[in-house]
Amino acid sequence: MTNTHETFDRVESQVRSYSRSFPKLFGKAKNATIFGHDGREYIDFLAGCSSLNYGHNDPDMQAALVDYITSDGITHGLDMFTEAKQAFLEAYESIILKPRDMNYKLMFTGPTGANAVEAAIKLARKVTGRTNVIAFTNGFHGMTLGALAATGNAGKRGGAGIDLNGVHRAPFEGYFGPDVDTADMLEQMLDDPSGGIDAPAAILVEPVQGEGGLNAASPQWLKKIEKIAKKHGALLILDDIQAGCGRTGTFFSCEEFGLDPDIITQAKSLSGMGLPFALTLLKPEHDIWKPAEHNGTFRGNNHAFVTARVALEKFWRDETFANGVKAKGMHLETRLGAIAKRYDLTLRGRGMMMGINTEDGDVAAEICAKCFEQGLIIETSGGRDEVVKVLCPLTIELAQLDKGLDIIEDAFEAVLASDISRAAAE
Amino acid sequence: MTNTHETFDRVESQVRSYSRSFPKLFGKAKNATIFGHDGREYIDFLAGCSSLNYGHNDPDMQAALVDYITSDGITHGLDMFTEAKQAFLEAYESIILKPRDMNYKLMFTGPTGANAVEAAIKLARKVTGRTNVIAFTNGFHGMTLGALAATGNAGKRGGAGIDLNGVHRAPFEGYFGPDVDTADMLEQMLDDPSGGIDAPAAILVEPVQGEGGLNAASPQWLKKIEKIAKKHGALLILDDIQAGCGRTGTFFSCEEFGLDPDIITQAKSLSGMGLPFALTLLKPEHDIWKPAEHNGTFRGNNHAFVTARVALEKFWRDETFANGVKAKGMHLETRLGAIAKRYDLTLRGRGMMMGINTEDGDVAAEICAKCFEQGLIIETSGGRDEVVKVLCPLTIELAQLDKGLDIIEDAFEAVLASDISRAAAE
Amino acid sequence: MTNTHETFDRVESQVRSYSRSFPKLFGKAKNATIFGHDGREYIDFLAGCSSLNYGHNDPDMQAALVDYITSDGITHGLDMFTEAKQAFLEAYESIILKPRDMNYKLMFTGPTGANAVEAAIKLARKVTGRTNVIAFTNGFHGMTLGALAATGNAGKRGGAGIDLNGVHRAPFEGYFGPDVDTADMLEQMLDDPSGGIDAPAAILVEPVQGEGGLNAASPQWLKKIEKIAKKHGALLILDDIQAGCGRTGTFFSCEEFGLDPDIITQAKSLSGMGLPFALTLLKPEHDIWKPAEHNGTFRGNNHAFVTARVALEKFWRDETFANGVKAKGMHLETRLGAIAKRYDLTLRGRGMMMGINTEDGDVAAEICAKCFEQGLIIETSGGRDEVVKVLCPLTIELAQLDKGLDIIEDAFEAVLASDISRAAAE
Amino acid sequence: MTNTHETFDRVESQVRSYSRSFPKLFGKAKNATIFGHDGREYIDFLAGCSSLNYGHNDPDMQAALVDYITSDGITHGLDMFTEAKQAFLEAYESIILKPRDMNYKLMFTGPTGANAVEAAIKLARKVTGRTNVIAFTNGFHGMTLGALAATGNAGKRGGAGIDLNGVHRAPFEGYFGPDVDTADMLEQMLDDPSGGIDAPAAILVEPVQGEGGLNAASPQWLKKIEKIAKKHGALLILDDIQAGCGRTGTFFSCEEFGLDPDIITQAKSLSGMGLPFALTLLKPEHDIWKPAEHNGTFRGNNHAFVTARVALEKFWRDETFANGVKAKGMHLETRLGAIAKRYDLTLRGRGMMMGINTEDGDVAAEICAKCFEQGLIIETSGGRDEVVKVLCPLTIELAQLDKGLDIIEDAFEAVLASDISRAAAE
Repeated sequence: MTNTHETFDRVESQVRSYSRSFPKLFGKAKNATIFGHDGREYIDFLAGCSSLNYGHNDPDMQAALVDYITSDGITHGLDMFTEAKQAFLEAYESIILKPRDMNYKLMFTGPTGANAVEAAIKLARKVTGRTNVIAFTNGFHGMTLGALAATGNAGKRGGAGIDLNGVHRAPFEGYFGPDVDTADMLEQMLDDPSGGIDAPAAILVEPVQGEGGLNAASPQWLKKIEKIAKKHGALLILDDIQAGCGRTGTFFSCEEFGLDPDIITQAKSLSGMGLPFALTLLKPEHDIWKPAEHNGTFRGNNHAFVTARVALEKFWRDETFANGVKAKGMHLETRLGAIAKRYDLTLRGRGMMMGINTEDGDVAAEICAKCFEQGLIIETSGGRDEVVKVLCPLTIELAQLDKGLDIIEDAFEAVLASDISRAAAE
Repeated sequence: MTNTHETFDRVESQVRSYSRSFPKLFGKAKNATIFGHDGREYIDFLAGCSSLNYGHNDPDMQAALVDYITSDGITHGLDMFTEAKQAFLEAYESIILKPRDMNYKLMFTGPTGANAVEAAIKLARKVTGRTNVIAFTNGFHGMTLGALAATGNAGKRGGAGIDLNGVHRAPFEGYFGPDVDTADMLEQMLDDPSGGIDAPAAILVEPVQGEGGLNAASPQWLKKIEKIAKKHGALLILDDIQAGCGRTGTFFSCEEFGLDPDIITQAKSLSGMGLPFALTLLKPEHDIWKPAEHNGTFRGNNHAFVTARVALEKFWRDETFANGVKAKGMHLETRLGAIAKRYDLTLRGRGMMMGINTEDGDVAAEICAKCFEQGLIIETSGGRDEVVKVLCPLTIELAQLDKGLDIIEDAFEAVLASDISRAAAE
Repeated sequence: MTNTHETFDRVESQVRSYSRSFPKLFGKAKNATIFGHDGREYIDFLAGCSSLNYGHNDPDMQAALVDYITSDGITHGLDMFTEAKQAFLEAYESIILKPRDMNYKLMFTGPTGANAVEAAIKLARKVTGRTNVIAFTNGFHGMTLGALAATGNAGKRGGAGIDLNGVHRAPFEGYFGPDVDTADMLEQMLDDPSGGIDAPAAILVEPVQGEGGLNAASPQWLKKIEKIAKKHGALLILDDIQAGCGRTGTFFSCEEFGLDPDIITQAKSLSGMGLPFALTLLKPEHDIWKPAEHNGTFRGNNHAFVTARVALEKFWRDETFANGVKAKGMHLETRLGAIAKRYDLTLRGRGMMMGINTEDGDVAAEICAKCFEQGLIIETSGGRDEVVKVLCPLTIELAQLDKGLDIIEDAFEAVLASDISRAAAE
Repeated sequence: MTNTHETFDRVESQVRSYSRSFPKLFGKAKNATIFGHDGREYIDFLAGCSSLNYGHNDPDMQAALVDYITSDGITHGLDMFTEAKQAFLEAYESIILKPRDMNYKLMFTGPTGANAVEAAIKLARKVTGRTNVIAFTNGFHGMTLGALAATGNAGKRGGAGIDLNGVHRAPFEGYFGPDVDTADMLEQMLDDPSGGIDAPAAILVEPVQGEGGLNAASPQWLKKIEKIAKKHGALLILDDIQAGCGRTGTFFSCEEFGLDPDIITQAKSLSGMGLPFALTLLKPEHDIWKPAEHNGTFRGNNHAFVTARVALEKFWRDETFANGVKAKGMHLETRLGAIAKRYDLTLRGRGMMMGINTEDGDVAAEICAKCFEQGLIIETSGGRDEVVKVLCPLTIELAQLDKGLDIIEDAFEAVLASDISRAAAE
């Protein structure tokens, strides 16, 4: 095995993407470090798009999983009762739901975020007898047809090859600038019997839009959206797939906002270790599914149950971890804020889901490329890929975090200072 | 932890289904045996709906996976180049594609069969610029909106809560009895400019309908379907998710039929060990995806790459395993055939994907319930759940296979002989 | 004004079609004769596609309409109460509904057949809460999006520019030959919970498919279709737009079949004189419309009310007219049958809606072109325009009917005898 | 025949609506006067919802139509060349198109406005290969499925019984108040690659929304909309069905705005006399229809060709009529403005399409009911039926116009003054 990508070029579809930004053969990884096949170390500020909030190969999860495998624990269980699933359910109930006074049923929908979103949308339609889902500009919810209809990105939508129906697109908070209240606009259109938006089954919203450019909704706006949903008999679905599992400093990204969503979707870091695992949380009164009305071969990924349980027990039994994330988030905000300020750019996001809007996709790409040269894996986000996005493991050591931020700082300097010089020279 | 299901009742959505047929807490599993929490042994004739063709916890896969984990191998890799993925690609190319003279690109679509089907349908629409997909009676392709539209089951479809468009339903082979050629019918309708079926993007067909009642299409019929697809500019998509990976005796269920499908979908047993993993194989000329036009957070499940590679290397390097499956398939056919004959019922399926059509969902359910009492896990299939379906691991020991078949034989006797007596008595 | 079509070429869209088959400027018309601008007489075997069943400019309708206009009768009345509408309603009730013991409400939907069909489909969906409509191969129901979805013709469907959803296409009677019962097939698929056809809101069927090639359904098949509709909770919609108003010998084309449709659509000859006018008849129990839930600016075409009333009073008060149509229909059958037999072709249709299937669109076009040269206006029908279709006014004089049939006979001779000679010579 | 509505109650569907506001049997009508069966005179401020811009039974149209009928002119001509059609085309070309330097092809789509809109949408989709149509809040475009999807009214949409797809709803000018530019908003969303609105086939807009509450778009806003359409490769469709034919003072409602629409739809007053007649005007470069790709039985309503020609020749050969309409429009504005001011209400609309927004549907209904008691036929408009709408014939005598306005003034007094008193008393 050599450090080239001939095999991939020859055998894999050209649909692959991250391997184009990071054309390197990787082998091992630990916490926030990924090792190239050649042994070179890379700092991981991508973290599997927030699927590795607890870092790569957490030793406790590794140990539990190895122990489970070597003792012949059931791997694939459909939705049969297994010990690993029961232990996960009990941990989720006692560590997550009860302390937050949340009353939800857990639906195992199949292991991808798109599965969780599809199940959420299906259920909202089933519960309300309506079909229209309100989704937002820059929203990202998945690639399967139902989830894709709610996704805003034109390139992704174009892959459908068929009309994506059943969704009305509304502007996210701040879309028309700080002075325009887009929640009020939505309310006016829904209130109006000739507004032309069919009565909604659901309003589907990401508290922080990860792919869409790190747009963080305010508690006030989300409360309004919730009120509109209730007023119009629609379910409020929070898609917490990228922003959840601690990314913003709390287990759910909005748990301090006083919201009461009907449905919450989770995936990405839920398994703790990057294993495919997703959940749809639903209020008990909406649990009107018939047995098997939604199913999926891999909805019983017992390896993920094991590691997910360890993640809950290790990181969420008390406030230590959350407080650490909040502290790091503030540090991140300070350092990124300084860079942004230097180039008169704006900061985006919340907690440890933060980035700088360069306002130009080419600039952002150049910055990320420079970072990769210096051993930092980092990606862009936003409708025009204009945001340089920091999504490092929440468990990253402060020194490594700073090292990564140094690389970013240098890359901005290299790309934008020369731009400024060029501009000045012209 | 006690052997009750209070936790599940309290915390999990009522959408769960298999746990209703098998209300038992399970813990460990090895090859074709599943162990209850209380230590009771069950023979597994369900095999994760064909996701465990190589049995539970194959020791070589376990070893490789444990080794990978303990050496900090990358778990979650998006679509970055990793050593585990490269090794899988090389194994797939050399062990599967080359010996069969198959020229396909591998698309990693996200880890579920539904992802693979959604990607296949999207690509067919993109390639042809058309939207209509021909799918068949009793077809089962997944729960996400695009795949669900192609699925025939009314209960599943009803969960969508929205119209499922873009699919024309055609009768599968033999649907109207042995004398009616449904391929000819489809051809006539498509040939007719007023036939009212829009020019198709794809014909999507399962070579053996697993969920739909073990309907095995003949080579002749499939060849006709392929010819119709080509004549009408449609892509032929073989959904080999349940029937593939050796289930019918060969790696692909139709590889001896002389077909040349444009797209093949794989999942279920692909990872070898029951881990979430799916693939869409596509002819290179159809590989017109733009980078990231279809993506998915869990499309780089490296644990699955490891175990899938082991599965290929262990079972498919030569004919030994395939020949063993064929032999067991014949044994299965003989024994199930005898039972079917006794009660004047018909056998269904092909290879080790075989069952008895009891023609009555209640009867089939009663038989399966009796089997479970006797320590056999087995399920029904078919539009009315009327088929008792044997889907044991292909690696099952002959003695255990016979033991399971004995239990089935007794269960048929218990349920149907009494029926016959009752009927005679009346 | 000269007898050229420069004006049309310059000012009108190229979507026009009949003027391509009959490139002639016409001026006046009386009963079955159309007069060219130059005075040349043409026999009309097209009759406005069955919109002129009572011929052009019936003198009694002319008189009544002129009287109405000159006395300032309301022309355009929306759905306000007008004397002309009241008189029409009373005539329709006493002459049509009561003697046939039919209990239907009349819905004025807007003046086109497509309006009537759209209203019928909308109502069936509203009544059943379902969306799926079963329509048939070769069906023709109109050009607006809802009606077009039910239309089978690929050329027409292609004009939509968007997917036409909400309709399952089923084969019409005899589609797969005389030995295959397509009603049984439909029933089997609908009965099957995995048949993959969603529970239907309606079955929409033309008793005789006019545009689709003069396929006349048998009473037996239609009764089966009705039974299937009732069994599955679907409404039976008879689209009698082309076959109704006496075309088959009775006012409704199926009134002697013992059917009990939920909805009947009428248009074309309903006004008697070719004025835009359509009706949707619905069983009172289905009259669940809210006021104005379906409306239309021209749903109160009072000129049409006047002439439609005269048509009812003149032609349908007793059996005379109907008997005459039946007699002419038999004459037509005899003469067309003889021509068909000569060339080993088949007769199609019923009553005075009859034609010869030439099995070749080019041949049929050549025959119609030859007819036009000889002063006969006649068109083709069928998926491949392969049927030479006689749709003359029902009021045509027998001598003129024979003259037209002579021209057809000669045209078949000219086109097909030479073909046969050619074939023999080769 | 008696002056009751028993017949209607017994025989007609309950979908009827105007007859509920005006429960009176009408017989004759002349210009702006409608006569009850009992001889009572009513002033017509409804004018067939703008279908009777030239009043009831214009004597010249009557004479021409009677002459045409009595001379056996062709009534129903499909799309064959007829003298009446040719004369209409020539008049339209010389009187309407040439003087306005407009280069359009005329498409005869079937006689209803909905037909014209459906054809326009179909063509835009065909031309662009896209499906998405941008339509506006409060838009009204018809009841057939394609047109209904673009209509905003929830009550009308609810009648569809199926999802109405293919349309994105955008806010009309002023929807969020005078300070929010909704055209800029639309542009921002369309410019944004993650805006989530698919590239549009067309922007469909009424220059003055008739049913939607007399919202008159400004030239500036419409120019912006046109610019957005061109920028994004979409066709601009002006739906001039209610606002055209002189209603705003010019033949096309926007002809003085400097717009260059790709498609214009016309209907309602196009025939001059209230006969069913519609047109879709399209730029020659968009005339890519295949023959008969869109058709319709009643697309050759020759009676309408005759009266429409007379209307063009009588009213549009010079400026006299247009100037008269403008003058009356100003008079209307003055008088309605005074009423509106008295009650602190706002005026809506443009030209002779004007009304008062009472801000309360019950109030507006009460006012209209009072008017009817006093012999004035007038209706409401707007999403909540809150606008009292004056749509009298453009040909109304000034004295009668004032008489009608007096009745309105009194009705406002009766309803609102008492309200004010009541409010003061409370």
